[in-house]
Amino acid sequence: MYNVIIIGSGPAGLTAAIYTARANLDPLVISGMEKGGQVTLTDDLENFPGFPDGLGGFELYQSLEKQAKKFGAEILDDVVTQVDLTGNVKVVKTATNEFKAKTVIIATGSTPRKLDVAGEKELTGKGVSYCATCDGFFFKDKHVAVIGGGNSALDEGLFLTRFAKKVTIIHRRDRLRADAILQERAFKHEKIGIVWDTVVDSIVGDDSVKHLVLRNVKTNEKIEFPVDGVFIFIGHLPNVDLFDDQIKLAPDNTIITDRRTRTNITGVFACGDVQDSIYRQAITAAGSGCQAAMEAEKLVAELQGQAYPGK
Amino acid sequence: MYNVIIIGSGPAGLTAAIYTARANLDPLVISGMEKGGQVTLTDDLENFPGFPDGLGGFELYQSLEKQAKKFGAEILDDVVTQVDLTGNVKVVKTATNEFKAKTVIIATGSTPRKLDVAGEKELTGKGVSYCATCDGFFFKDKHVAVIGGGNSALDEGLFLTRFAKKVTIIHRRDRLRADAILQERAFKHEKIGIVWDTVVDSIVGDDSVKHLVLRNVKTNEKIEFPVDGVFIFIGHLPNVDLFDDQIKLAPDNTIITDRRTRTNITGVFACGDVQDSIYRQAITAAGSGCQAAMEAEKLVAELQGQAYPGK
Repeated sequence: MYNVIIIGSGPAGLTAAIYTARANLDPLVISGMEKGGQVTLTDDLENFPGFPDGLGGFELYQSLEKQAKKFGAEILDDVVTQVDLTGNVKVVKTATNEFKAKTVIIATGSTPRKLDVAGEKELTGKGVSYCATCDGFFFKDKHVAVIGGGNSALDEGLFLTRFAKKVTIIHRRDRLRADAILQERAFKHEKIGIVWDTVVDSIVGDDSVKHLVLRNVKTNEKIEFPVDGVFIFIGHLPNVDLFDDQIKLAPDNTIITDRRTRTNITGVFACGDVQDSIYRQAITAAGSGCQAAMEAEKLVAELQGQAYPGK
Repeated sequence: MYNVIIIGSGPAGLTAAIYTARANLDPLVISGMEKGGQVTLTDDLENFPGFPDGLGGFELYQSLEKQAKKFGAEILDDVVTQVDLTGNVKVVKTATNEFKAKTVIIATGSTPRKLDVAGEKELTGKGVSYCATCDGFFFKDKHVAVIGGGNSALDEGLFLTRFAKKVTIIHRRDRLRADAILQERAFKHEKIGIVWDTVVDSIVGDDSVKHLVLRNVKTNEKIEFPVDGVFIFIGHLPNVDLFDDQIKLAPDNTIITDRRTRTNITGVFACGDVQDSIYRQAITAAGSGCQAAMEAEKLVAELQGQAYPGK
């Protein structure tokens, strides 16, 4: 039986692996479908502390994996299909294997909801972004579009005014869902414009975004709308399908943790974006991965000597 | 007036600087007496995620500073002598200057309490350590001493049994202060021995620790006690002298923050070891520095348009 199984291989999961491996716990990491997590979609990660010249997201993933392996983490390129976390012995299954552990660290991340339009995938990282804190800096004096009408769309739209010369919010309805105070700040802001009743039909560009094809949902009229970038804030989907019958979730589907990364089940910890509705940065994910590792270590120490069936 | 002043230049403060600078807030960092913070005392930092070959603590500090400056942070090599954080305008004074800001991020760190004996300072990083999570890994199959009798001494002593062949706890009284359950686990552990009624008179070694000079406080008898390393856990002192009349502290003198790094005063955030009684890792400090930066940015945006006296 493993001391700890870590599900997910982004900055949270691999930091948890570095710390638990270095604590001699011989962790098993199951990488999941998207090895390295969301950060690997970033070509130029400028704000991970310690890298003044920036680095690629995939490069960060490779470094983290190398560091975890160096201390003895076992990393399995497989996908978890089923878990039973409720007992003393946690059971984690993949298509062909079954593993048991004293503790489990969930680090499955979250996925920004996509528009699902032509050009979106191809231009991600080339003008299409899902994170203003990450990418706003690249759009100094540019014109950017923000897609969405909720709090995060307006929050991030307002944030983008620190860089962009113009921010156009594109919303498919004729009113916003965001809090009144955010709406008021957006309406008042000289750099912000709003296009109502409008959806994005496609994103067009080659090396970078050139324009959006917008469609008015009332008139069906289409226009080409030139922008340098497009930020899509239509929701985040925490990757919790494996757990949602066992682990308590918040209304936005993030896993509920206490300040020490503990979930509602003893021995199950969660770190990174799967439990974060606010920051969703590689560095905050890594910080919480370290916390989860140290908590798991403490629990394993407390459990020492406990009888496990089939140990 | 500054949008944000950051007090402290360890991983927490400089990560907050990277993020606030990259958000175009033009932060001022006041470095403080120990530039780079506690991490600079570490020669070989193996567990900061992203560096599979490790790096020096001072090197990390230099990288963080370079990264913060790159995005426009102003870094002042000075020491804060007085603050007034209670008003809308926060006032931060050094010996020769006075600065005003809309928000303040406190990242002053903490200092492990020292034994204050000969050899301690000289051999720090050469066998003398204040952090088992950081340095335990270097003592595989070695004999280490742990100084202290509280929860953290026993916690970390138990942690060290994952590596060391023997852990000797040296305590100046004839009973421990630690919780009964930890005492029980320590007493039962085959690798742990306890030396009672004994203090360390000096730590002896050249390139590494060779032995301790121990003195029995009842008999005054001295002995040479050979060890490969000594872990000192006699308390941590959060650096809060500047703030303790204004900011609410926990019983252990850490600054009380909510889960979003907010203190009891609006516009004042705290991150890193000064608000952390549990983890105290460079990576957790950096994660919380990012959080404080993002919270300060949000607040500055909310305050936009607010009248400031003397703006």
